[in-house]
Amino acid sequence: MPSETLDVIDRHESAVRSYVRAFPEVFTTAKGHVMRGESGREYIDFFAGAGALNYGHNDDGMKRALLDYIASDGVTHSLDMATTAKGRFLERFHEVILAPRGLDHRVLFPGPTGTNAVETALKLARKVTGREKIVSFTNGFHGMTLGSLSVTGNGFKRGGAGLPLDNAVFMPFDDFMGDGFDGLSYLEHMLSNGGSGLDLPAGVIVETVQGEGGINAASFDWLKRLSDLCARWDLPLILDDIQAGCGRTGTFFSFEPAGIKPDIICLSKSLSGYGLPMSVVLVRPDMDVFGPGEHNGTFRGNAPAFITATEALRFWTDDTLSRAVEKKGAIIEAALTEMAERHPELKPQVRGRGLMRGLALHVKGVAEAVCAEAFRNGVIMETSGPDSEVAKLLPSLTIPEEALRQGLEVMAQAVDTAAAQQAKGASQAA
Amino acid sequence: MPSETLDVIDRHESAVRSYVRAFPEVFTTAKGHVMRGESGREYIDFFAGAGALNYGHNDDGMKRALLDYIASDGVTHSLDMATTAKGRFLERFHEVILAPRGLDHRVLFPGPTGTNAVETALKLARKVTGREKIVSFTNGFHGMTLGSLSVTGNGFKRGGAGLPLDNAVFMPFDDFMGDGFDGLSYLEHMLSNGGSGLDLPAGVIVETVQGEGGINAASFDWLKRLSDLCARWDLPLILDDIQAGCGRTGTFFSFEPAGIKPDIICLSKSLSGYGLPMSVVLVRPDMDVFGPGEHNGTFRGNAPAFITATEALRFWTDDTLSRAVEKKGAIIEAALTEMAERHPELKPQVRGRGLMRGLALHVKGVAEAVCAEAFRNGVIMETSGPDSEVAKLLPSLTIPEEALRQGLEVMAQAVDTAAAQQAKGASQAA
Amino acid sequence: MPSETLDVIDRHESAVRSYVRAFPEVFTTAKGHVMRGESGREYIDFFAGAGALNYGHNDDGMKRALLDYIASDGVTHSLDMATTAKGRFLERFHEVILAPRGLDHRVLFPGPTGTNAVETALKLARKVTGREKIVSFTNGFHGMTLGSLSVTGNGFKRGGAGLPLDNAVFMPFDDFMGDGFDGLSYLEHMLSNGGSGLDLPAGVIVETVQGEGGINAASFDWLKRLSDLCARWDLPLILDDIQAGCGRTGTFFSFEPAGIKPDIICLSKSLSGYGLPMSVVLVRPDMDVFGPGEHNGTFRGNAPAFITATEALRFWTDDTLSRAVEKKGAIIEAALTEMAERHPELKPQVRGRGLMRGLALHVKGVAEAVCAEAFRNGVIMETSGPDSEVAKLLPSLTIPEEALRQGLEVMAQAVDTAAAQQAKGASQAA
Amino acid sequence: MPSETLDVIDRHESAVRSYVRAFPEVFTTAKGHVMRGESGREYIDFFAGAGALNYGHNDDGMKRALLDYIASDGVTHSLDMATTAKGRFLERFHEVILAPRGLDHRVLFPGPTGTNAVETALKLARKVTGREKIVSFTNGFHGMTLGSLSVTGNGFKRGGAGLPLDNAVFMPFDDFMGDGFDGLSYLEHMLSNGGSGLDLPAGVIVETVQGEGGINAASFDWLKRLSDLCARWDLPLILDDIQAGCGRTGTFFSFEPAGIKPDIICLSKSLSGYGLPMSVVLVRPDMDVFGPGEHNGTFRGNAPAFITATEALRFWTDDTLSRAVEKKGAIIEAALTEMAERHPELKPQVRGRGLMRGLALHVKGVAEAVCAEAFRNGVIMETSGPDSEVAKLLPSLTIPEEALRQGLEVMAQAVDTAAAQQAKGASQAA
Repeated sequence: MPSETLDVIDRHESAVRSYVRAFPEVFTTAKGHVMRGESGREYIDFFAGAGALNYGHNDDGMKRALLDYIASDGVTHSLDMATTAKGRFLERFHEVILAPRGLDHRVLFPGPTGTNAVETALKLARKVTGREKIVSFTNGFHGMTLGSLSVTGNGFKRGGAGLPLDNAVFMPFDDFMGDGFDGLSYLEHMLSNGGSGLDLPAGVIVETVQGEGGINAASFDWLKRLSDLCARWDLPLILDDIQAGCGRTGTFFSFEPAGIKPDIICLSKSLSGYGLPMSVVLVRPDMDVFGPGEHNGTFRGNAPAFITATEALRFWTDDTLSRAVEKKGAIIEAALTEMAERHPELKPQVRGRGLMRGLALHVKGVAEAVCAEAFRNGVIMETSGPDSEVAKLLPSLTIPEEALRQGLEVMAQAVDTAAAQQAKGASQAA
Repeated sequence: MPSETLDVIDRHESAVRSYVRAFPEVFTTAKGHVMRGESGREYIDFFAGAGALNYGHNDDGMKRALLDYIASDGVTHSLDMATTAKGRFLERFHEVILAPRGLDHRVLFPGPTGTNAVETALKLARKVTGREKIVSFTNGFHGMTLGSLSVTGNGFKRGGAGLPLDNAVFMPFDDFMGDGFDGLSYLEHMLSNGGSGLDLPAGVIVETVQGEGGINAASFDWLKRLSDLCARWDLPLILDDIQAGCGRTGTFFSFEPAGIKPDIICLSKSLSGYGLPMSVVLVRPDMDVFGPGEHNGTFRGNAPAFITATEALRFWTDDTLSRAVEKKGAIIEAALTEMAERHPELKPQVRGRGLMRGLALHVKGVAEAVCAEAFRNGVIMETSGPDSEVAKLLPSLTIPEEALRQGLEVMAQAVDTAAAQQAKGASQAA
Repeated sequence: MPSETLDVIDRHESAVRSYVRAFPEVFTTAKGHVMRGESGREYIDFFAGAGALNYGHNDDGMKRALLDYIASDGVTHSLDMATTAKGRFLERFHEVILAPRGLDHRVLFPGPTGTNAVETALKLARKVTGREKIVSFTNGFHGMTLGSLSVTGNGFKRGGAGLPLDNAVFMPFDDFMGDGFDGLSYLEHMLSNGGSGLDLPAGVIVETVQGEGGINAASFDWLKRLSDLCARWDLPLILDDIQAGCGRTGTFFSFEPAGIKPDIICLSKSLSGYGLPMSVVLVRPDMDVFGPGEHNGTFRGNAPAFITATEALRFWTDDTLSRAVEKKGAIIEAALTEMAERHPELKPQVRGRGLMRGLALHVKGVAEAVCAEAFRNGVIMETSGPDSEVAKLLPSLTIPEEALRQGLEVMAQAVDTAAAQQAKGASQAA
Repeated sequence: MPSETLDVIDRHESAVRSYVRAFPEVFTTAKGHVMRGESGREYIDFFAGAGALNYGHNDDGMKRALLDYIASDGVTHSLDMATTAKGRFLERFHEVILAPRGLDHRVLFPGPTGTNAVETALKLARKVTGREKIVSFTNGFHGMTLGSLSVTGNGFKRGGAGLPLDNAVFMPFDDFMGDGFDGLSYLEHMLSNGGSGLDLPAGVIVETVQGEGGINAASFDWLKRLSDLCARWDLPLILDDIQAGCGRTGTFFSFEPAGIKPDIICLSKSLSGYGLPMSVVLVRPDMDVFGPGEHNGTFRGNAPAFITATEALRFWTDDTLSRAVEKKGAIIEAALTEMAERHPELKPQVRGRGLMRGLALHVKGVAEAVCAEAFRNGVIMETSGPDSEVAKLLPSLTIPEEALRQGLEVMAQAVDTAAAQQAKGASQAA
C-alpha cells in the first residue's frame, strides 16, 4: 500500500531530501530506541538522529519538563533576552559540566544549529588572531553553510557551494595515510618552514571522532600532540564536539580522555537532549572578544531546548551513563569484529569508540547494501565516509543491551546477505 | 533587588549577548502581546522576537497541538525522514499558501534558521547558474554565517567575519540615495555595459522591507521593476521574506502586492508560528537542482515546529488577519506621524508598511533613548538601522487594538522625554 | 603574395595573438610616426604602441644614447643593484619631473610592465591601510595579472582569469550614467552609510582618461572631487597614469590640470620613451612601507630603458611639447567633430583630450570597419571600449601636423566608407 | 669616498630596494662573468642577474645583432603585431629548441617578465579545466603579482600582498620532509580520497630546481612520478622553468633528463640571452584556448629581446655548452663539498645541479656573512632559502674555468672567515 504521505513528500519537497529515500517509511511516534512507522511497524534506531538523540527519543524526564514549561506559557522564543530557562541552564551547565572539568569557558549561544556554532567559532578565532586561514583535517565535517563548508572535506558537499572554498588548509587526520606517516610532524614542519606556503593560521578545527567522515577516531596521543602543537604556535584549537560530544564516546566531552582543554568548543546535536535545536560555543574567557550583537541569530534563545537541556544534565551527575556507554561500546566492538572476521573478502575494518562505531567495508556499494538490508529487517542505520563505505552505528546511549544485541544480530545477517549478493554479482560480472 | 539570574548570565554568558543589556529583566512567561518578568511586571511586546512571533506568544491553538504531539510521543527529531508531521505541513502549506497564489515552488528544508535558508538559496542560485556574484542591496540583512554575511550590508556585523567578504555586489536599495537617483537603472546600466566590472551575477537577493536595515520599505513599483530586470537578465531573484513574510506586512508573502513571483523564497522567523526554529526555501521547480543530501542539516526536520506551523496556517484561510494588519498598521502610522510632527527637531521620518514600522530620528542616540524610556514604562521595542537611528515597531499581528494604542502612548511619551533630554544636552553642550 | 612570416606566426604563435589579425602586415622598420612593412609599404601610425611610443618610433636622440650605452658594454641587467644608468635616471627624473611639480614621491621599480606597477600599488595600499577592498571605476583598465585584472572592468578580459575576481568594488566613472547622476555622491553615500556593504577600502584606483575603456576623459572637477573624497576618508588615491601619462594629454602627468597630488602614481608605456619595457610606482614617502625585497622582479633594473628614459626627459625641460600636443589635439578634435556631424546616423560621439582621442560610433561593428578600412589605406588605428565601439587615435606626440592631417583625411574617408557599407547592409537586411 | 650615485638612490628610490644594500657598489659596465664598479674595481659575478644572464654580460654576438637592429631602425615596440624579428625568433626557436625535443607547443607572449608568464599559465590552466585550485610546492617561487604570489611559498613575500592568498594548495616538494615521507603518495592520497578537502585542481605548478626556495633540486624520478600523476588525474602540469631553464642545469629545459613533457612551460630570465625582458609560455596545442586578446600586455612584443634571443639560440645547435655546464657544475660541487667537510659545525649541505648550486649552512646568519665577505673580496653572490640559509652560486654558463675556480677560492675563504666569526660570536655569547 503506497503511503499518501510519501506521495505528498515526493510531490512537494525538494529533490535534496535524502534519508527519506534510504528509509521509505513514514514515522509517527518514537520512544527510547524505537521508532514506529505509519503501519505500526517498529524499528530499532541505530541512527539516533545522526547523533542528536543520545538519550533516546522522547525521554520521559525531559518530556515532562517540556510539557510543564509549555503548559505554563513559559517564554518560548527570547533571542538573547534573559529568561529563567536560560539562567537555569547556564547555572546548571556550569555546575555539572564545566566546573568539575576545570573549564571556565563562557557560553555563547550562536543560533540553534551545529553550523551556527562552527561559523561562530571560526569568526571568533579569526577575530582573536587577526589571521584568516583555518587548519582543518581530511574527512572533517563541520557543516553546510559557507564558512563551515570551507573546512569540511567532503567533495560532494563542497561542490554544492558553487564557489571556490577558501581560507582553509587541510591536513591529514590521524591515520589518514596509514603507518609511517606522521601528519602532525608534517603540519609542524609546514608551520616551521618560512617557505612552506602555510600562512600562520587563525586556528585549528578538529573532531575527535569523525562521524560523517567515516567514524575515524583520533588516538588520545594524537589529540594531545595536536593540542600541544596549537599551544606552541599560539593557534586557537576549536574542538567540534557536535557529534562526538554529549556522552557519545562515554565522557561528556569526547576529548576528556586525551587530557586536553580546547580553546573553543562547539556543542549541538544532543545538547538539548530531546532533539530540539540548540547549540553553544564554549569560549576561553580571554577569547570572548565579540562586542554585543557582533554575532547574533533569531533562534539563539530557543527556551524549550534550554528546559530539556537542563533536564538532560541529570545524566551527568554521576558516571552511570559513562560506564554503560563503555560496556555497550564493547558489545558492539565484539560484534563488529566477528562480522569482520567472517567476511575478510569485504576488506572490513572495525572503527570508532564509545557508542560511535562503524564497520568499514572497502568493496563498493556493500556498506549501503548492508544498511538497506538492515532497514528491511527493522534496524535503522546509515553509512558514512567519503564513499559511503562505512556502516555506521549510533544507537542511543540508553538503549537496553538486549535491544542492542538484537539490532546487531540483524546487522550481522545483513552483512551476510550483502556479502552473498556481492559474491554473486562479482561472479556474474566475471 | 538584583536578580540572581542576571548575575548568572553576566558570569557565564559570552560578551556577545545583546538584548539582555537593553532589557534588563528576567522574563518568565508570555502570552499574546504580553511578556511577564520575574517580579511579576508585565510588558507590552512591540518587538515580537524580532519578527518571529507574528501570532503573539504561545498562541492557544498551536500550544494545544504542540502539547498533544509531545504528549503522544510524536517523533521530535527526524532529519529528512518522512514523518506524518512533515507530510501534513507540506500538504497544508501547499493548499493554503502556495496553490492559491499560483506558486508551484518546491519546499526545501535547509536547517531551522534564517541564515540556513539564505545560505542554501545562495548555493542554489550559484549551482543553477554556474556563476558566483550575488547582487545584494544596501542595508540588506540576511544572516551571520559567512555566505549570508557576505550579502549583508551592516559594517559592524561584517567586521565580525575576520575575513574579506567576497562574491557580493551591493546596489542601492529603493530610495537609498533619495530623489532623482534610480538605482535600478544604475544596476541595469552596470549589467549592460561590458566594461562595468560587474560580472554577470548568479542572482539577486532582496527584502521587500528591510527590518534590520532601518525599516526601509521598497515600493511595489521598484520590486516589480527589479523582478522584471531579473527576468530580462536571467538572474534568479531570491526574496528573503524571513522578517517581512508570514503576514508581517499584511499578506502572507510580503511581495504579493507587487505582483511578482520570486524564483527562490526564504521563510523562517514566524513560519513555525510559535517561535520554534523552522525555515524553508521555496524553489522554482526547474531550479530544484541539488542532489540528495548535497545540502543538509541536523535540525532540518524539527517536527514540533512542523506541528505549530501547520496550525498557524489557520490564520491564512481567510483575510481576517490581513485586514487586521492593515487597520493596525494605519493606527501606528497615524501615531508615528503625530510624534514626528511634534518633534521636527529630531529630524523624524515615518517608515514601513503593515505592522513593520519605524520612526527614524536622525539625531544621534535619540532612537536608543526612546526605546530605553519605553522599556522603563513597560513597552519592549528596539532600534534598527545602520546607526540604530530607527525606533522599530514589530508588535504581534494579533495584538488587540487597545494594547496597541496603549503601547503607542508609552512610545509617544518616550519620544517627548528623549526630545527633552536631547534639547537639554544640546543646550548644555552649547 | 602570402608572407612567410605571417605563416610562421600562424603556425607557432598562440591563438591569443590579436593585433596581427587586425593588421595583417609584417613590420620591419619604423621611424617617428611611420611604420614600414615587409613589402616596403609605409603606414601612418595612429596607434603608437597603444601609447608606449609617445615620442614616435626610434627617436634619434634616444637611439644614439642607447647605441652608445650598448656599445660601451654598459650594464644591461641589474635587478636593483646600483648602476650609473639608474642613478642618472633617478636624479634627472626628480629634477625635471617631480621637483617642479612639488612632488616628493619616492620611485619604486616594480618590474618593467604596467601591470607590475599596478599590482605593486595595490599591495602597497593594502599594506599601508591594513584593508583589502580597492575602489575601481567602470571601464577602468589596469592590467592582466590577477590583482590588476580584479580592478579592470572589461568582462571579456575578466573572464580569462578563470577565478571569481575579488576585493574590488566598481563605482561609476565620470559621466558613466550620463546627466543627473553624480557617481561621487553615490560613492560618498556608500562610504558614509554604515549599512551600505562597502567596507572601508584600502584605496581608490583611477585613470584620468580611460584608454582601453573607450577614451573616456574625466573632468578636472570630477578628479579634484575624487581626490578630496579620498583625503576625507583617508583612502590612498592610486593614479594609473600608464596610458594617459608621459605627456599624452599635454602635461607630463595627466592629472596636473586637475590640481591634485595622488598618493601613488603608476607610470609605464612611454616612460622609457623608446618602447623599451619600464615602469615605476611613485609613492608618497610616508606610504613607502615595503621592507627590502618585499616586492621584487627580475627585470626591475632594465638599464637600457633607464638610458632612453633619461634622454626622453629632454622633452620636458620646457613647454614646447605640451603646446604642440594642445595644438594637434585641437586639430583632431575638429576633424572628428566634422566626421561626427557628417554621420549622425552612426550615433557618433567625440571623446578625449590632448592626443588621446576617439570617435565613438554607437552602431555595432562600424568602429571596427573604420579601423580596417583606414589600415587598408595606410593608417594604423585601433578600437577601444567595451564593445569596440570607439575608433581610437593615439598618434605620437611628435607627429608632424601634415602627417596628422593626412591620417585624419584617410580616417574621414574610412568613416564615409564604413557608413556607406553600414547603410547598404541595413537596407539589405530590411 | 662616498658615491654620489648611492646617495641619489638613497634619497629617491623606494625602501623596497634590496640588492643595492647587499652590494654597495655602483656598477658601470659588465662583460662576460665580470662586473665593473664606478671606481674601476672588477667583480666575478656568481649571481648572473638571478639567472637572467646565463650567457654572461653583453655577449658579443648578441651585442652585434642588437646594435645592428637598433641602428637600422628595426621596430622596437610592436605589441603582437607581426615583425620580422618575431617571425625569425619563432621559426628558429621551433627549429632549434622545440622540434628536436619532440614538443609541438605553441608560443604565447604574455608580457616580458616571469610573473607575466606564470599568471598567464595559471589563467590558462583554469580556463582549460574550469577548475580553480592550483597545487604548488613548498618553497616554490613563481613571482610577485597576485596570482603568482598565491602559489609562492615564501611567507615574507606573501605578507606583502595584504590579502589572504587563495586558490593554491601547497604540497611537500621532493625531500621537503626528509627520508621516509613520500609527498607524492600524500598528494595522490589527497586526490583519491573524496573527503580530503582537496578539490580537483586546475593544475600543478613546479620548478625542477627551486632557485629562490633554497636550491632544492627535485630528483628525476620524483619529477617523472609527478608528471605521471598529473596525467593520471588529468591535471595540467605547469613547469616554471624561468630560473632553471635556458641551460642553467645543462640541458635547455631543466626537465629534459626526467623524460617528461609538461603541458605548459614558462620561460623568461635568460630567454633573451642579453638580460632584456622577455618571456614566453609554451602551451600544448589543445590547451591553447584563449581567444584573441583574452590575455595581453603592452610589452609582449619587445623586439630587441627577440633579436638577442634568436642569436642566443646559437648556443643550442650542439651540445658544447651542455657539456661545459656539466663539467663546471662538477667543479663547483667538489669545491662546495670540500667547504662543507671543512666546516661540519656550520651544518652544511651541498645542493643543486648543473650551474645552479648552493651551500646550505644551517646556522643563523652564516650564509649571509659568507656572501658579504665574498663581496668584499670581489665575488658577487647571494643567499636564498626561506631563512636566507643558502649561499647560492649562479655563475654564467660561459664563465671560464679559471675564473670559476678563482671565485670558488674567494668563497671558500669567506666560509672560513664566517665560520671563525661565528665561533667567536658563539663563544662570546656563552
